[in-house]
Amino acid sequence: MLDETAANASTAEIMDGIGKAARAASRPLATLGGERRRAALLAMAEAIRAASDTILKANARDVAAARESDMGAAMVDRLALDADRIEGIATGIDAIADLPDPVGSVIASWDRPNGLKIERVRTPLGVIGVIYESRPNVTADAGALCVKAGNAVILRGGSDSVHSSRAIHACLVEGLKTAGLPGEAIQLVPTTDRAAVGEMLAGLDGNIDVIVPRGGRNLVARVRNDARVPVFAHLEGLCHVYVDASADLDMAKAVVVNAKMRRTSVCGAAETLLVDHRAAGTHLGPLIEALGEAGCEVRGSAAVVDLFADVAPAVAADWSTEYGDAIISVALVEGVEGAIAHIERYSSHHTEAVLAEDATVVERFFDEVDSAILLHNASTQFADGGEFGMGAEIGIATGKMHARGPVGVEQLTSFKYRVRGSGQTRP
Amino acid sequence: MLDETAANASTAEIMDGIGKAARAASRPLATLGGERRRAALLAMAEAIRAASDTILKANARDVAAARESDMGAAMVDRLALDADRIEGIATGIDAIADLPDPVGSVIASWDRPNGLKIERVRTPLGVIGVIYESRPNVTADAGALCVKAGNAVILRGGSDSVHSSRAIHACLVEGLKTAGLPGEAIQLVPTTDRAAVGEMLAGLDGNIDVIVPRGGRNLVARVRNDARVPVFAHLEGLCHVYVDASADLDMAKAVVVNAKMRRTSVCGAAETLLVDHRAAGTHLGPLIEALGEAGCEVRGSAAVVDLFADVAPAVAADWSTEYGDAIISVALVEGVEGAIAHIERYSSHHTEAVLAEDATVVERFFDEVDSAILLHNASTQFADGGEFGMGAEIGIATGKMHARGPVGVEQLTSFKYRVRGSGQTRP
Repeated sequence: MLDETAANASTAEIMDGIGKAARAASRPLATLGGERRRAALLAMAEAIRAASDTILKANARDVAAARESDMGAAMVDRLALDADRIEGIATGIDAIADLPDPVGSVIASWDRPNGLKIERVRTPLGVIGVIYESRPNVTADAGALCVKAGNAVILRGGSDSVHSSRAIHACLVEGLKTAGLPGEAIQLVPTTDRAAVGEMLAGLDGNIDVIVPRGGRNLVARVRNDARVPVFAHLEGLCHVYVDASADLDMAKAVVVNAKMRRTSVCGAAETLLVDHRAAGTHLGPLIEALGEAGCEVRGSAAVVDLFADVAPAVAADWSTEYGDAIISVALVEGVEGAIAHIERYSSHHTEAVLAEDATVVERFFDEVDSAILLHNASTQFADGGEFGMGAEIGIATGKMHARGPVGVEQLTSFKYRVRGSGQTRP
Repeated sequence: MLDETAANASTAEIMDGIGKAARAASRPLATLGGERRRAALLAMAEAIRAASDTILKANARDVAAARESDMGAAMVDRLALDADRIEGIATGIDAIADLPDPVGSVIASWDRPNGLKIERVRTPLGVIGVIYESRPNVTADAGALCVKAGNAVILRGGSDSVHSSRAIHACLVEGLKTAGLPGEAIQLVPTTDRAAVGEMLAGLDGNIDVIVPRGGRNLVARVRNDARVPVFAHLEGLCHVYVDASADLDMAKAVVVNAKMRRTSVCGAAETLLVDHRAAGTHLGPLIEALGEAGCEVRGSAAVVDLFADVAPAVAADWSTEYGDAIISVALVEGVEGAIAHIERYSSHHTEAVLAEDATVVERFFDEVDSAILLHNASTQFADGGEFGMGAEIGIATGKMHARGPVGVEQLTSFKYRVRGSGQTRP
């Protein structure tokens, strides 16, 4: 018991120091200018290229440990780096460096009758906590995105990638220092004590402004339940595609197959296909056939199975399941109204698509479905900050506060008002 | 004990029902269109005018109870209504009705190289919880603002104003129903059991999206500490005015006196005056004199007292005190850099003003001070949604997430992305 208490106290002290150092570093990061931050990012990328051998050696230790612990092959693949992946990490940081600087940009401006000129301008959020699992590239991506937006960041990686993350982190710190920015602007939690996560979720005495979890459902659920500070995250991406009777059939086949099958593991993959009952005789069969040809298992509602006896019947849980695999549930609905009702009941409010040529159907879907991203005649797999033209994203948020949808550099900022007067007093 | 348990269970059940009804009502409120919401607000104002006598009678009960309980005269004045104040409440709702409808407005739009057209459009937040104290007009203001932005609202007023709030709330519900909107879009918590507040702070099972406290420091502190959902609030308004050596003296005198003395109890009132040490011989004396003539007590730093022996010395606590009264603390600082350092240490990050003719001083102040509202050559008392041209505000937020500064109709919205394609699939 004594030992445990001492260990906990030590983690608490470490995390307290990290929080204070991050808050202090956030000031120069916010005020020394975008050119300095850009220079730091470019220097980070160079440092990663120069340290490629060191990073590979560190990664080899993580991979060896993972194999010994019987980690699955897919997980080992996520963890493993090679020269190409390291160059990809460096190139990614270069790309973030060249994004427009959000800090200080004027979001809105207007004049008042009394002559006051009001501007709303972007400011950094402050300190961002990132809690992630095994992918070591998150260390670089998340660190670079937060710094681009003028924020300090506290990174807490998974123990599986600890050596890789430390090697990459050293390069990020080197880049900061090369540009004359404080190394504490990107800190990697040094302890693998799980209590460190609890400290971060509690907000480090006001020294963390927002938490971003990057990882599986269990991690995100814990962060959302326990965090005492705002969280940018989505728990799941249970995305729907609705095919209206007015939809172009060839387009619908291509978009539905892409939405489901391009990559089945991403959060923007479609999980449920809703087909207008008026299209049961025209669209439903060809869509099921196209999905089957693409290698997708189809599970149908009772009405679908009645029409296509070779389709497996869906059970109640199917409508709430994010398969993350080549499986799709298919239901017939009463037009766009039925689709909206189904989506409201089962959606995770991440991304939904409507395939239709009837403009009133599209507008109703766009008005009434309350999800972060709505698409017309396009694949749900476009739910991605890069595809939105935001450059890079730290994740996708389904919360309605502050950030919703892709969380890119702009979403990692706050704002303030600047009001210019000429001696105005308030009557 | 049995009775108490039963009472608690009952409050939990009541609040659970209120949360579910609010969430259900938020759908038609969001989707039936801005014209419907505007009609409801106009009908609410009419209902309040028509029920003026009923409201006055209800208010008389609250005022009588307050006098019996030895409530202070200032508090009784806040509670008391008369015909003019009721007309003011109705006029305020009419003004909110006529604000531009934020729902569906396009915040940003851009096209992608693949032809996708992306729009970010405003949507309601959902359900807003408002917890307030004795001012019965908050019932009407907060209810109307939330509905204007397409949100359902759960109002929890203080027990002091319970009869007044119920009478006003009945008019709001009448207005909703007149326009064909569900009466549950504005609910007033019927019980004065304090456990109801705890239920709201816990978020009513996901049925409250954001909480707005309206009241004194103790209420706001409790809400900020205990809420498990986002909060729009400021704990205090410890606002600073910095007078640079380059400031126009006459302007500085007028603005400083207005910032402090126009209304000493509002959150935008100045509490600390920082004067450039290079202006100690030119500006400091006249500013102290002007404040004294306006009836303000001045408490000075050691350097100030050295120069002006009749100024009372400030103690350490003065720099952290929101007086809410005709008292100001005054310090000499080392130019704008010293002012920024003082503000960073003591400010509540609400509102600060810089009085200067030197543009580099102004830009540095605007860049480096991290508060919600920064003013140049204007009074801190302009920190107000109405003065910003937002029409009305539900409060001022000092948090950095989502809403910062005045919280008006726009800040009570979220957004979603609408993406229009022509069959795009993701490669």
